[in-house]
Amino acid sequence: MILSLYLLSNKKIMIYLTRRERFNAAHKLHNPDWDDQKNHEVFGKCSNPNWHGHNYIMYVTVKGEVNPETGWVIDLKDLSKILKEHVIEQLDHKNINVDVEFMKGKWASTEVLCIEIWKVIEPKIKALGADLHCIKLEETENNYVEYYG
Amino acid sequence: MILSLYLLSNKKIMIYLTRRERFNAAHKLHNPDWDDQKNHEVFGKCSNPNWHGHNYIMYVTVKGEVNPETGWVIDLKDLSKILKEHVIEQLDHKNINVDVEFMKGKWASTEVLCIEIWKVIEPKIKALGADLHCIKLEETENNYVEYYG
Amino acid sequence: MILSLYLLSNKKIMIYLTRRERFNAAHKLHNPDWDDQKNHEVFGKCSNPNWHGHNYIMYVTVKGEVNPETGWVIDLKDLSKILKEHVIEQLDHKNINVDVEFMKGKWASTEVLCIEIWKVIEPKIKALGADLHCIKLEETENNYVEYYG
Amino acid sequence: MILSLYLLSNKKIMIYLTRRERFNAAHKLHNPDWDDQKNHEVFGKCSNPNWHGHNYIMYVTVKGEVNPETGWVIDLKDLSKILKEHVIEQLDHKNINVDVEFMKGKWASTEVLCIEIWKVIEPKIKALGADLHCIKLEETENNYVEYYG
Amino acid sequence: MILSLYLLSNKKIMIYLTRRERFNAAHKLHNPDWDDQKNHEVFGKCSNPNWHGHNYIMYVTVKGEVNPETGWVIDLKDLSKILKEHVIEQLDHKNINVDVEFMKGKWASTEVLCIEIWKVIEPKIKALGADLHCIKLEETENNYVEYYG
Amino acid sequence: MILSLYLLSNKKIMIYLTRRERFNAAHKLHNPDWDDQKNHEVFGKCSNPNWHGHNYIMYVTVKGEVNPETGWVIDLKDLSKILKEHVIEQLDHKNINVDVEFMKGKWASTEVLCIEIWKVIEPKIKALGADLHCIKLEETENNYVEYYG
Repeated sequence: MILSLYLLSNKKIMIYLTRRERFNAAHKLHNPDWDDQKNHEVFGKCSNPNWHGHNYIMYVTVKGEVNPETGWVIDLKDLSKILKEHVIEQLDHKNINVDVEFMKGKWASTEVLCIEIWKVIEPKIKALGADLHCIKLEETENNYVEYYG
Repeated sequence: MILSLYLLSNKKIMIYLTRRERFNAAHKLHNPDWDDQKNHEVFGKCSNPNWHGHNYIMYVTVKGEVNPETGWVIDLKDLSKILKEHVIEQLDHKNINVDVEFMKGKWASTEVLCIEIWKVIEPKIKALGADLHCIKLEETENNYVEYYG
Repeated sequence: MILSLYLLSNKKIMIYLTRRERFNAAHKLHNPDWDDQKNHEVFGKCSNPNWHGHNYIMYVTVKGEVNPETGWVIDLKDLSKILKEHVIEQLDHKNINVDVEFMKGKWASTEVLCIEIWKVIEPKIKALGADLHCIKLEETENNYVEYYG
Repeated sequence: MILSLYLLSNKKIMIYLTRRERFNAAHKLHNPDWDDQKNHEVFGKCSNPNWHGHNYIMYVTVKGEVNPETGWVIDLKDLSKILKEHVIEQLDHKNINVDVEFMKGKWASTEVLCIEIWKVIEPKIKALGADLHCIKLEETENNYVEYYG
Repeated sequence: MILSLYLLSNKKIMIYLTRRERFNAAHKLHNPDWDDQKNHEVFGKCSNPNWHGHNYIMYVTVKGEVNPETGWVIDLKDLSKILKEHVIEQLDHKNINVDVEFMKGKWASTEVLCIEIWKVIEPKIKALGADLHCIKLEETENNYVEYYG
Repeated sequence: MILSLYLLSNKKIMIYLTRRERFNAAHKLHNPDWDDQKNHEVFGKCSNPNWHGHNYIMYVTVKGEVNPETGWVIDLKDLSKILKEHVIEQLDHKNINVDVEFMKGKWASTEVLCIEIWKVIEPKIKALGADLHCIKLEETENNYVEYYG
């Protein structure tokens, strides 16, 4: 097959594959070392003690070489299954500060959430035969963070 | 001016003008007449007692005739000011079940929220010289409600 | 409860609820009463005998009164289940002209597809206690059809 | 053909078909009966004498019955051709206040532009065998107008 | 002109310019070395022998220095012309497995399609005076691939 | 606190944070060293002497390490304030060729605009304690430029 010629070339053919998943969660920004006034001064309305929430959108990008038998990097269904089981089920319709095991004792900022999701899924994606390249996490249509490990 | 001819015609020239605004809030679906088990049976993950949240998108449509001096129905800045003061400031970064005066004692469903926002802004839009036509409230990219009064 | 007051008012409180679902399918525009040349003249590239395809986006809008026990019109999960079972599973990753039972012997245009989906889901939505109001079917970002029954 | 049965039923089967087109134009809001100060008071930054501009998005919705020979209401290519020739070519990369024949002597507001586009295309769509139902004109992601004639 | 000073600085001013184009095509995932059962086991519904399809969205990013006479990297019209002639016309309203010359004998996965488009356009973009940097190909709103050569 | 452990690790934890802002402006492409005919030959409809305009969308990406006291890179409100004061207020509802101090004597192309915005905001973002990584500027839904300094 012509596809297998990809493997014979000297140059590595690296492809980046991205899956989008979504979750709806409550959170607040809050530093427990500060009193309420200091929290409000720094975090503003994001520190509302009664919580607020977001429709988070997560883009997970993995990289790898094309598998000559399938024509893809990894099976998107496998990637989606990992994300649903280990990220979405933990976060969707949950309170990030209270309900999520892997966020216990950590700031519920988009930055920290992105880093902690990386820790959870990075070994599982490696086991699929690809490398985790980037997690992009959108909190609103006007702001998002990206983490490359 | 040619524009004023619009007013002289027999047929009313009705224009619909829509403004989009957004707010990020926490909520849960919960019937206080039911115990936790019944709430969970009916509302599923939406009844999480620790809350979850959304980026709500609100589209407010007003209708009226074109003002011959300005070429518009009403001043969008006036409409936006009403929406920001009476809706967005009440809801953004808030808990819909707990923090919002006009939602006290009411279900925090998108349907009821939409109806209650109507009650708040309908007289204020009338005072601007236009009629409130529709409020569309998106909870996620996959579901929204519309209310026409 | 305050919510139940909605039911006591003289005016009916009608709410419109919309669910978005998606399916990816192949089709071609083809009138079997015409020869290939005539089909190509009328339908152009849409008549490619080897098929082409789309990511269809379907918006199903139902209307009804707010249920005083839940604060919603109908359970979105019930609506989504109907759409997934009777529409998406029939159409997703299928050939509209060949694979879909309820499209047998019918034109695979967006207009006809929209009408036929209506026939399939209208009685099922009635059984949920709401009325089907509109089906909107997007074929591309530049064109869509709407059907109100 | 089964499709032709649509025509034999007593109930009219009305379908709404929408085409999206875009144009990028400069404009300002300006009432020539007022001096600059009054224009600035009413129109604010929209009255900048050096112009500003927008990526306008236009949705044109026509209605009609399904043609039993084609399965569509009208040929989208015909609709698009009318819109491109009579609207987009007149407005795209133009100054709405200065360059556009059918806007001469009229306010360059989104409302008036929408009404004037209706006048231009309504008879041409009638000639295609359908009725113009609605023109929706988006000026920004946060505001749009709709006109139903 | 001040613009020409850009060229005199020691540091190269590299700009990335992206053009979005779209095509609607049918395909299936299918390894001819496998029987139908194996194809179905691996590719699932994507292996439907009667095809399915997508609205593909392609983003082509080129990089280069700003031309001091025009203020742009390359003429977007030239870039768009290359993409339309060599990619869109080959793929739009086509069957990727059957109709497309440059995909003959290759897997119709998004990954392989992206690589093969690169081979087609890379020399033509070089001839315009810029370098092809990335092709991003979206198959659905939930998955896309990127290739950097 | 667990968060502070991030700082103690040997590996730098770099996070990319992006803010989206929008402005609506008029411009034309025009080389003053050329006569009108040459400008029209090269720039086509973009050289309309009466101007045209766009809804520009700007994405500003900064990078930095997570602040252990806040869980974020920098305060988004500070970033937004810089962008609003030094970019949006200069460009929104303005004529890029005529009204904008930092574009005086420069081509009003998206490429050059992107570079000049970089020069304006790069030192101000450094003062916030982060590095400017990328500015992405969308002119239409079909084209954008990116600049990395």
